[in-house]
This record gives sequence, C-alpha cells and structure tokens, in this order.
Amino acid sequence: MGEDCGTGVAFTRNPADGENAFYGEYLVNAQGEDVVAGIRTPLPINKKQKTDASVKSLEELWPDIYKQVIKVRNNLEKNYRDMQDIEFTIQNRKLWMLQTRTGKRTAFAAFKIAIDMVRQKLITKEEALMRVEPDQLNQLLRPIFDPQEKDKALKAGDMVARGLNAGPGAASGKVVFNAEDAENWANRGEQVILVRIDTSPEDIRGMNAAQGILTSRGGMTSHAALVARQMGKVCVAGCGTLDIDYARKVIRVNGKTIQEGEFVSIDGTTGEVFAGQIKTIPSEILRVLVDKTLKPSQSKIYQDFALLMKWADEVRSLGIRTNADQPDQAAIAVAFGAEGIGLCRTEHMFFEGDRIDAVREMILADDKAGRVAALEKLLPMQKDDFVGLFTVMKGLPVTIRTLDPPLHEFLPHTDREVADLAQKLGVTAEKIQSKIDSLHEANPMLGHRGCRLGIVFPEITEMQARAIFEAACEVKKKKINVKPEVMIPLVGNINELKLQKDVVVQVADEVFKKNKTKVDYMVGTMIEIPRAAITADEIAKEAEFFSFGTNDLTQTTLGMSRDDAGKFLVPYVEKEIYSFDPFQRIDEAGVGKLMKLGVDLGRGTRKNLKCGICGEHGGEPNSVAFCHKVGLNYVSCSPYRVTIAKLAAARAAIENKKTMKTAVKKAPAKKKRK
Amino acid sequence: MGEDCGTGVAFTRNPADGENAFYGEYLVNAQGEDVVAGIRTPLPINKKQKTDASVKSLEELWPDIYKQVIKVRNNLEKNYRDMQDIEFTIQNRKLWMLQTRTGKRTAFAAFKIAIDMVRQKLITKEEALMRVEPDQLNQLLRPIFDPQEKDKALKAGDMVARGLNAGPGAASGKVVFNAEDAENWANRGEQVILVRIDTSPEDIRGMNAAQGILTSRGGMTSHAALVARQMGKVCVAGCGTLDIDYARKVIRVNGKTIQEGEFVSIDGTTGEVFAGQIKTIPSEILRVLVDKTLKPSQSKIYQDFALLMKWADEVRSLGIRTNADQPDQAAIAVAFGAEGIGLCRTEHMFFEGDRIDAVREMILADDKAGRVAALEKLLPMQKDDFVGLFTVMKGLPVTIRTLDPPLHEFLPHTDREVADLAQKLGVTAEKIQSKIDSLHEANPMLGHRGCRLGIVFPEITEMQARAIFEAACEVKKKKINVKPEVMIPLVGNINELKLQKDVVVQVADEVFKKNKTKVDYMVGTMIEIPRAAITADEIAKEAEFFSFGTNDLTQTTLGMSRDDAGKFLVPYVEKEIYSFDPFQRIDEAGVGKLMKLGVDLGRGTRKNLKCGICGEHGGEPNSVAFCHKVGLNYVSCSPYRVTIAKLAAARAAIENKKTMKTAVKKAPAKKKRK
Repeated sequence: MGEDCGTGVAFTRNPADGENAFYGEYLVNAQGEDVVAGIRTPLPINKKQKTDASVKSLEELWPDIYKQVIKVRNNLEKNYRDMQDIEFTIQNRKLWMLQTRTGKRTAFAAFKIAIDMVRQKLITKEEALMRVEPDQLNQLLRPIFDPQEKDKALKAGDMVARGLNAGPGAASGKVVFNAEDAENWANRGEQVILVRIDTSPEDIRGMNAAQGILTSRGGMTSHAALVARQMGKVCVAGCGTLDIDYARKVIRVNGKTIQEGEFVSIDGTTGEVFAGQIKTIPSEILRVLVDKTLKPSQSKIYQDFALLMKWADEVRSLGIRTNADQPDQAAIAVAFGAEGIGLCRTEHMFFEGDRIDAVREMILADDKAGRVAALEKLLPMQKDDFVGLFTVMKGLPVTIRTLDPPLHEFLPHTDREVADLAQKLGVTAEKIQSKIDSLHEANPMLGHRGCRLGIVFPEITEMQARAIFEAACEVKKKKINVKPEVMIPLVGNINELKLQKDVVVQVADEVFKKNKTKVDYMVGTMIEIPRAAITADEIAKEAEFFSFGTNDLTQTTLGMSRDDAGKFLVPYVEKEIYSFDPFQRIDEAGVGKLMKLGVDLGRGTRKNLKCGICGEHGGEPNSVAFCHKVGLNYVSCSPYRVTIAKLAAARAAIENKKTMKTAVKKAPAKKKRK
Repeated sequence: MGEDCGTGVAFTRNPADGENAFYGEYLVNAQGEDVVAGIRTPLPINKKQKTDASVKSLEELWPDIYKQVIKVRNNLEKNYRDMQDIEFTIQNRKLWMLQTRTGKRTAFAAFKIAIDMVRQKLITKEEALMRVEPDQLNQLLRPIFDPQEKDKALKAGDMVARGLNAGPGAASGKVVFNAEDAENWANRGEQVILVRIDTSPEDIRGMNAAQGILTSRGGMTSHAALVARQMGKVCVAGCGTLDIDYARKVIRVNGKTIQEGEFVSIDGTTGEVFAGQIKTIPSEILRVLVDKTLKPSQSKIYQDFALLMKWADEVRSLGIRTNADQPDQAAIAVAFGAEGIGLCRTEHMFFEGDRIDAVREMILADDKAGRVAALEKLLPMQKDDFVGLFTVMKGLPVTIRTLDPPLHEFLPHTDREVADLAQKLGVTAEKIQSKIDSLHEANPMLGHRGCRLGIVFPEITEMQARAIFEAACEVKKKKINVKPEVMIPLVGNINELKLQKDVVVQVADEVFKKNKTKVDYMVGTMIEIPRAAITADEIAKEAEFFSFGTNDLTQTTLGMSRDDAGKFLVPYVEKEIYSFDPFQRIDEAGVGKLMKLGVDLGRGTRKNLKCGICGEHGGEPNSVAFCHKVGLNYVSCSPYRVTIAKLAAARAAIENKKTMKTAVKKAPAKKKRK
C-alpha cells in the first residue's frame, strides 16, 4: 500500500447526539480492520471534529476524496432514508465504498435524527414516530449523572451494588432510613435518598421528600417502584445484596458500610448504586414543562420533543390519561398532555396529615355510629382533595376509585405506634392490638378489600361519594366543568356493583338536590379479577365504563403475588417460561385474552362501553400497543409516562394501519368473488 | 256432629323411619283442624301404633272405615307412586278424603321408602335414585347423638355455641388444646376433641387421634374443615364466640369456662357445641364397610344402601375417585367403591414421623448438594408410601401430585421449636429464623409453591418421581397392577409443565432401565389458576390429563382467599351477591365457565383428554352434576363422600337423559328439514 491509500469508518450523522454532521475516523496506509481493531489511533475525518491541531483530518489531507465521501454520504441517506454507518477505503487516491448499514445510536441521537429527517423531508412524520422507541423517550425526561463524574466513580470502585432499575433517572443524596427522617431532613434543605427494606403506604410523604428511593426487597412493581414512578422519583428496588440495618442505621454491602447521613447515588435507569455523591444533570424537557425554569424557546430539545408529541397526537386513536391522586401530580400529567385522570386512588389521601387518625378511629369503631362519626371528620378533607383535582383537570374526566386496600394497612405496625395511637384515641393498646390481630389476613391480596369493604361498610362508600359530588358541585359553581367517574374496585359479580352503585347514585341525588345543581357523572368498575372479565356481559348491564386493573388481573390470572414473585420470576424469565416479566408487560396469551373477552362481552351488552386500563401496564409501550389492538378507548399511566404512552399509542396506530393495508392487499379483490 | 264423626291425618308410610306401615292419628267428633292445632290429643290410627291400652285406635273403633282408608292409601300410593300425607274425615260413618300430598320425611325414611317402592315395583330404580338427596345419604353414614341424650342436654342448657357444620356426625370427648396432647391422651385411651383457633398441616396427627375438631376461626373450607372431612372426622369450625386461651388452657364462652380435660360434645351435622358428654350412636353402614364389626347380613340398612349404590353404578357415567394420601384412607374409599385416587397430596407424607426433620434439613440447605442429601433421606420413606397406596389400589389409577405448599409451611413456628430444630440439625437458631424470615410471603396462596418449587428446585420433583416409579416397579414385581398418574400442580404456562414433565420422564426412564421393567404412567396437570384454563389448548399439548383444582381455581377466579373470606362471605351470601358459598359449591357462572373453556380447549388439542376434578367440590352434589354436564370423566372427593358423589353422578346422568329427551322432542323432525 502506498502513500495514497487509506481507510475510514464513519456515521452519516453523529451517533451520540444526532447532530446532522458527518462524523468518523480514518487511517492513512491501513486496512479497515485496523480502524475497528483499535491498534492504531485513527484521525478525525474533518476539521470540525479536530481536537488536536497537529493532526490532519481527511478533509485537509485529501479534500477531493472528502468531497466525494460527503457526496456519497448524501446519496446514501437519501436512498436509505436513515443514518448510515459506512466503511470505505482509498487506493491510489481513489475512493472505494466497502459497506453501509443503518447506524446504531443513542436515545438522544435517535430522537434528534428522526425529527431532523422529517424537516429535511427525508422521511415522513409517521416514519419518525416509528424510529423513536418510547423507552428512548423516557431517557430524555430523566436527570442523568454527569457522564464524566460517573466514569470517575466507576473507576474509583464506588459502585457497590446493582438492583432493579425501577424508577429511571439519577439521584444523589444523604442516606436516611425512614420516612419521617426523610421529611425532616428534606425540610431543613438536605437532599436525601430514602433507604428501606421495602416501603408501605405510610412512607409516601417521606418518598415524596426524597430525591430517590433505594430498597433491598421487592420487584419492578413493588410498592416502592410503583409509587416512585408515579411520583417521577428515581428508584432502585430489590437490591438484595444490601443488608439494611434499621436499628444501627447502617447499610452493609460487600464488606463496606454506609452510615446514615453519608451520600449514596443511585441510577434508576441502570439499577447501579454508588457510595458517595455524583453530580446530576436535569432534563431540559422537565425544566420547561414541570419546573418552568426554562422557556420553550430556550430549549431546542424541548421544541423537538413538542413537535414529536404533536405528530403522535395527530396519529394516535388511543386516549391517554394519568394515574394521579394529588393536584400537583395531575398538573404535571396535564402539562405532559394527559387527557384525564384514569385512576385516582382515594386511599392515598387517607395518609395525608392528621387524616390517618380519623381513618384509624373509623377502623377501631365498635359500630356503625362510631364509624360514621369518624367518617364525618374525613368528609371535608376528602372533599377538598377532589376540589383540588377537579380544578386542575378543568373539565377533563376524573376517574375516582373508592377505597381499595384492606383496612389493616392503615393501622400502626410497631408497639410504640400502637401505644401512641391508644393515647391519642383514649383507648387501650390491647384494644388496638386485638383489632390489628383480628384484621390480620393470610392472603390480603385476596382478602377483605376493594368493593368488599364498601359492601360490608356502605358508610365508607357513602362518605366518599358525598365528598366527590359536593366537590363537583362546588367546582361547577365556579364555572369550571367537572366530569367525575366513580369507579368500584375488585368487582367480580354484578351484584357487588349493583349494591355499590345504588349507594353512589343515592348520594349523588341527595347532593344535587341540596345544591340545586346537577353534574354529569358515570359509575363504572375495575375489571381486575378473572370473574369480572368472564362475566363482563352481566357486569356491563350496570357498569357505565370498564377500567382494566391489570396489576391485580395479572396476579389473579397467573395466581402469582407480585410481592412474592421475586423468588421465582427471575428463574422463570431465565428459563423462558415467560419471556418477560408479566407484571411489567401484559401477558397477552393469558391476561390479554381475558381483557379481550371482557371488552367483547362488555360491548356486546353496552355497545359504546368506554374501556380503559389503569394498571402499571398502561405506561409500557408493548402493552399500550396491545391495548390499541383490543380496542380500548384509553390507557392511564403515571404522569411521567404520559408522553411515552402517547408515542406508543401513535406507533400502534401506525402499525395497525400497515397491518390493515397488508391484509387488504392479501385479500382477494372483491370483484373476483362474484 | 254425632258420635259417628271423626277426622284423621296420616302418612301412607312412617315419615320418621320409612317403614311400610300406615301411620297416623285421628280424633273422634272433631274437625281436621283440631288434629293439626293440637288442642286435643289425637288417638293412634291402628293397633300397631298403640302405646296406651286404654285408648281405641281407628282400626278397633271402626274396622270397616279403617279398611276403607287402607284401601284408599294403597290406591293413592299406586297412583302417586310416593308416600302421601293425607287428611280425611268421617261423617255418619262415611269416609271422606279431604286432601293428599307428597309427605315430608327424614333422610332415613326417604332412603328406605325409595328402595321399598322399587321392590314393590311402584317406582323404577331411576326414580328411587332421584328421590334420595345425596346429602341425605351423608346422614346415614354418620354417628349421631343419642336423640334422648341430646334432648336432655338441650333442656339443661348445655348448648354453649354454634359454629359451622364443617364435618358431619357427632362426637364427644375431653378438651385438648394442641395436637401433641391429642395424640398423647388418645394413646392412653382417652377420647378427645382437639380445640384450636385454627389448624395447620402440623396438627394432622393430632386431628387424626381426636374424635372431633373444634375451631374458632376459618370457614367450611378451612384447613381444619378440609382435613376433617377427608379423614371422616366430626368438625365444627369457625365458632367465633369461643375465646380459646392456649396459655391458660381454657375455653371461655358466654360467661362459662371449659377447662382442658373437661368434656365437650360437638355436632358436625348441625354445628352445635355442647358442654359435657353426650352419648353417640354409630352408623351401621360404617360398621359394615369400615370397622367390619357388623356383617352385611346383619344390617338391613347396609343392604338397602348397597342396593342403591348398585343402581347408581348402573346409571352413572361419571367416574368416582377419592382424595387420599394414606393406604388406610384409600382402603376406606375403595370399600365405598372409589375407582381410583384422584388426588394424593404428597406433602401430607412429609409430616409423618421423623420425616419432617429431613424436610426441614432440605429447606435449610445452603445449596443443591445439601438439598439432594436431605432428599435422599426422604426417598425411601416416600417410596414406602407409594408402595402402600399402589398395593391397596390394586391397579386402579393413582394420581399423585408433586409437592404443592410453600416451603415455609414446613418450618417451625415457635421460638422453642426453632431452638429444638437448631439443636437437632446442629445449626444456629438465628440461621433457622433467618430462613423463616426469608421465606415469609405477603400472599402465600399466590407465592412460591406448586410447580414453582419444582422449577426452582428440580431435585424435589426428581426425588418424588423416583419414589413413585421405584414403588411402581416394586409393586408390579409382586404381580399387582400399578397405574401411576403424576400430576404437576399450579401450572399456568405450558413451559412450566414441559420442564417438570421432562424431569419426571427422565427419572421414569432411568428407574425402568434399572429395574428392567416398565410401568404405564401418565403425566398431567392441575388446572387451578385461570391462565391454565384460558391456555388449555396449549397446555394439552403436554398434559396427558387435566384435573381441575377448584379450591384454588375459585380463589383465583374470584380473587378471594378462602382463609380470609369468612369476614365478608357471610354478608355476601346474606345480601345474595352469591346465592351460596362458592367454596362449597362450584360457581358455575365464573369458575364453571373457565372449567368448560378448559375442557373444550384441552379436548380441541387432545381429543380424548381425560378430565377430572379434585377440589372439595368433587363431593358436593350440585357441583358433581355440573361436572357431569361439562363432560368431565371423573370427580374425586374425600373417602367419606364417595357414595354421595356416586349418587349425585347417577342423578346427573338421569337428569341429563331427561333433558336430552325433551330436547329431542322439541327439535323439528329431520324429514321436515328436507
């Protein structure tokens, strides 16, 4: 090989950030393999890429060849309509193209390239939508570790463990071991990571106060993971190698110890856990939409993002709602484009402030009169919650689920808490303990919860319905539209729904009469146990809408508790019994078949029955595609997954159109049939 | 009204014991109402009935009238072909018949009348089968309280509580509060009633030693109730008014206390609980078939019973198997006419004698090698179990379920037990406690159990398969036929069955090769979670038989834990949400629909797929009828319900023939179609 020989590897655009700039390396006097093998350090392909003035780029060395390559690059992109990864060689100053293929790229690059190519009219908007994976979009929304800082930490051996990447993004903070400390420390301005073996509804305020949550137990749909994603918090869950010692306030891991107050950094996108602090960089999109610290005009990436979302909205037929219990969560979801609330869990409100005392008083009451008295205290607070939600949602539908969890979840756990409560309520600790014991259940998932609570204690449903309709009337009087949809959980039998609906309708009538106004509302049900899906034709006689609760439907259809599945689900996925975690992605052959049956039976009874999904699957792209296929009207997901669901819905609509076109093509022409 | 007037009420046969003898009362100079109202004491209708020589029966007073009545009685029975309840009046020595209707009767009478009427050629065998309710048959098998003694106890106010009639029959014994005491006291010749808040698998030997079981918690399908019925033990369950104090060894109820060692008497047919001892009378049928203390020729009732069973066998198409884990249980079932074992729960064998130590050693092992070593100890014992079962069953099919319950059920519960085990195994108590903690599950029903155990620990399935096939070879060498059917529990996905079947088939091949013989066997699965029913077409590719586990299928399809349902199932049945307890009787609209789907899908793949049921419903008459309707091949029930299931199966076949006849009648004749 002579002086006039060389070889190069290049991308038609930058695979890291998606910039529309030719990007590559070359070697003089070398074979292609030399570049790939990394034996010699290659040179930059053009002046723009140069970081070292002493070297010569291809552009400088052989400007004519470079121009030819650029021309080829333009032709290739025009022809293949995508960013190409190309190899070429130069012999006697003559350019030979060796290979071209679609180039791999980062999430950021995929996103930017797709949008740029529409602008350049290389591809259609629909093609752009198909080129951005919904989960790639997720990465755009998350704070990340500063890449250099993370690299430093890795090299220093600070990565101490790896758990499940349960809540994407990166967070750094001081270790605290309980929710109360998380709140207190956060109030005095500390950034904290809440470290727990697992979390329960009582930890919610602490979770909200923390930068991130780290648990040693539980899977991708454990309480910690679910709530973290709903809150948009970083979360690494089920990190089993951590030995969390609440008593000594220390984490022991691989011979190291991390004390309360020391820094940890967790990457919820990868599951990595680091000892020490690592700097994070926030997402521009969130700064525009949520924090409002950046104007749309200041962020190129936000503008691109908004454009992609606009295209998705034009294409998709599936509605996108959000799971939100608080006005602030709802506001974020609306900023992301949510078209309603698909699931408001009223029990989350029961933990706010002093309410838990009234809730506990209700549970401990000896009779209905006692329960009603305690519920009276809750009524104005629940009403305020709904006023807040309705106001934020400005006439968008708000689906409110009546009380769902078993009552024992609201009672204290430790002896000290029991003693405190006894003093507060003026009863004996024994009485409380005896109540806790009597409410203990062998399998709480399948126990006294959902509508079974409202059926045994109709006064609870009554209070909740009253709070909903009084709030609706109040907001309507402020000239803000309201669309409440009351949703009865865990229905398995038409008679359950009938009884609960009667309570709701009666309260609505009373409240409307008292307020001399009326509000349009619906009463529907969750379809979350197999019997509901199987008897959906019956249930649709009473239900004005269905919402598939695929978290519980997966648990019951598969006979698998998501809290306990950790022990066997990993070997199960490894042995390919299930090719994915059915709690993350809808098991189409099982749960999906029941969903389809439910939709078809339901609409057989009530033609235009509105059907949605409010399980965690509502924010998972493959599951969203499935929901589109079985004809749901909407999916509901956590606020931070609204845009992902939108993109997935758009892609499903495009895919479906394609399939239908193919089907039409394949079908024999009509006239031939005659 | 003159001297020659009178009025009478009579049954054409004795409604109490079914004797073929005219039985009634009359009053001279009276209206019919006088007899009914009981204002005057009526007189016996004939000499046979007289207990007081000073009164005159109708037969004596007006022999001509009496003869007329007898003639009418014969005509009425001939015409109505059933025992009649008649009213007549006499005016001026002339007989006027006022009314006749089918007479109410006791279970004993119903049974006897039906059989006698066939003998008298008044009705057909099929009609006789339709006239005995299967549950009436149950009453014939049970010991009962001596009626006079019970009456005395009631009058003395000894009835202290009422629970669920969970295991029919009557039992009296001294109160003991734990299984160990039950065994010890029984060994020294005492009759005991085991009184527990609830029971667990560890209590089995104590339950077996006791005359009856009384619990304060749990429903009709609680562990205590299930095991009691399987053992044929008297059981009153869920008697919530009892305050059972283990520490002080006392029951407190309604201000009374019953100490350890004092007598209680429980009626499992009515749910009544008495303080003190009440004499019981044994069932003749059991004395012939099980105790062998009576010869068939000595018992008229046994002969009638055997005849009815013969008729049932002629008519029914549904096979009847039994759920039995021990040779003695199996022998009883065979005596009742069971045609195979439909469910042998291998885990029950794990509690026998010292085996539990080996089981615990296996659970506590740190690795596979440790588990295998412990399993080696269990192998010969499990093999012996199967040798026993195969020998008793003499070539009838024996369905053996591989290990099903979560492992934590085998670990000790109290600190003392933990300490004992630690010493036995030479490990620290901390290690055991930590294992117990790590195996703790939020919802064990939906946890790491069933085939999930065998998939994570294939060595367990391997040991069990080896025990089965080695036993089969050994028994076959003794020229006794063997038909093992290995059943994999809790399958929800074809891949689970595939993996477990591979283990079983490989072990079978090895054992057959080593023994130079072969045994016909099948590998099948339980259908007990909704996903299995929904994907039965897939599962039937591997499964050689299906057995519906309707206990768990009801729990998962309804999303209802049977252990926890007590709190809401009573109001549920009261409010007619479910018109019966779905754990007792198959919920046809939900669980039944899945069963039908499973059978149809399964047979779509494998035309002659054998389908059975081994849940508790297999012994419940309405459910047996449903099983017939959906085309199951057999039902399997506890030994003491085999005859009930037989009768129910016969009745279902008769009903079905009727329906089909009607359907044929209604269908337009074929030639019209042309």
